[in-house]
Amino acid sequence: MKLPVIVGLDALGGDRDRAEELARSLCGRVAGYKVGYPNILPCTGVGEAVRRACPGALIVADLKLADIGYTMKHIASHVIDWSDAAIAHSFIGVEGALDELKEYLDSNGKRLVLVASMSHPGAGRIIDPILDKIVEVVGEIGPWGIVAPATRPNVVRILRERFPGKVILSPGVGAQGASPGDALRAGADYEIIGRMITASKNPLLVVESLEERYRMVLGD
Amino acid sequence: MKLPVIVGLDALGGDRDRAEELARSLCGRVAGYKVGYPNILPCTGVGEAVRRACPGALIVADLKLADIGYTMKHIASHVIDWSDAAIAHSFIGVEGALDELKEYLDSNGKRLVLVASMSHPGAGRIIDPILDKIVEVVGEIGPWGIVAPATRPNVVRILRERFPGKVILSPGVGAQGASPGDALRAGADYEIIGRMITASKNPLLVVESLEERYRMVLGD
Repeated sequence: MKLPVIVGLDALGGDRDRAEELARSLCGRVAGYKVGYPNILPCTGVGEAVRRACPGALIVADLKLADIGYTMKHIASHVIDWSDAAIAHSFIGVEGALDELKEYLDSNGKRLVLVASMSHPGAGRIIDPILDKIVEVVGEIGPWGIVAPATRPNVVRILRERFPGKVILSPGVGAQGASPGDALRAGADYEIIGRMITASKNPLLVVESLEERYRMVLGD
Repeated sequence: MKLPVIVGLDALGGDRDRAEELARSLCGRVAGYKVGYPNILPCTGVGEAVRRACPGALIVADLKLADIGYTMKHIASHVIDWSDAAIAHSFIGVEGALDELKEYLDSNGKRLVLVASMSHPGAGRIIDPILDKIVEVVGEIGPWGIVAPATRPNVVRILRERFPGKVILSPGVGAQGASPGDALRAGADYEIIGRMITASKNPLLVVESLEERYRMVLGD
């Protein structure tokens, strides 16, 4: 079974060999990998190594882009060689920002994933209250995917209703408190799991133990 | 005269030699330098070079941090050796995010700069309408500085009134449309100027020509 899981590699930092080994050992067992700044900034080639280790996986560059268009395009240009999709924030709005980024990624055959809300408690107080405006931005830009927090399944549910055709990726599973399956039940397509897998001495065993859980959820 | 200008180096990308030469030639003439992902991601040591070229300058790492606390601390750890301050977004909120980042930067003797609003048109539609909430976050976290757009001086004015003691940094001057002095007149402490200086064949000449303008504004 290929789990509906994207493995977040942040905790591995710039350890290219461990990232490559992990990506290889889980290749075909999980849907993909999320490579973030903690992996990229040490300049050790983690993104390239993950691509090499599992060529067919969905590799998401977690850039959390939140800048003007000019700068975001510049940043994205550094990851397009090894990634399939890049994550940006919806709240920065359309004109002079996400419109330019979307055009850039489209023209390079890459997918845009927009953060609608986040997994930490503080996001519930400031981002969720303006979810209507966020939905407006997502609607105007038309990204391939949306990030919505597994820690607040109600937000996932709302976005699933508003965007039946979009791919929803949900972080916050494991170390951050949500249980595997919570977001999927609320309508997500993928759950992003980081430390629960990457901090384990036997990641493959964790993935195998998750299979039964996901079978139950998907069989609901 | 030392101009109230922070030079944004984004457009130089990873060209360490040009960044170092520019920082050296303007050292003492401008207040500082802003080093962003376009400079950092090529892995050429631009941040370290700028510090070397002008040890006393204010060097701001423009990370536009907008993630959970755990990840932001990890990212910030890669720039604390050469920067004095790091930029993060207010909109991500306090709990599990900015509270943790603030504590981390404090304990490393570094300053936090929070983005209150941004310089592109789209920000006027989604961020500015919730400025009250942003002000709440800024008030709770108590950063050293605030980023407010020179392109919308009214936002600068509001933030100056609410936070008389905070340092305000304003981007959007030059290529993005605001004129040098616009933000200062509205209450900003520093204007961030990028391409107008970095894309010039003679950056020192641009800085000299700006002196008269800033003298007028500051003498108002």
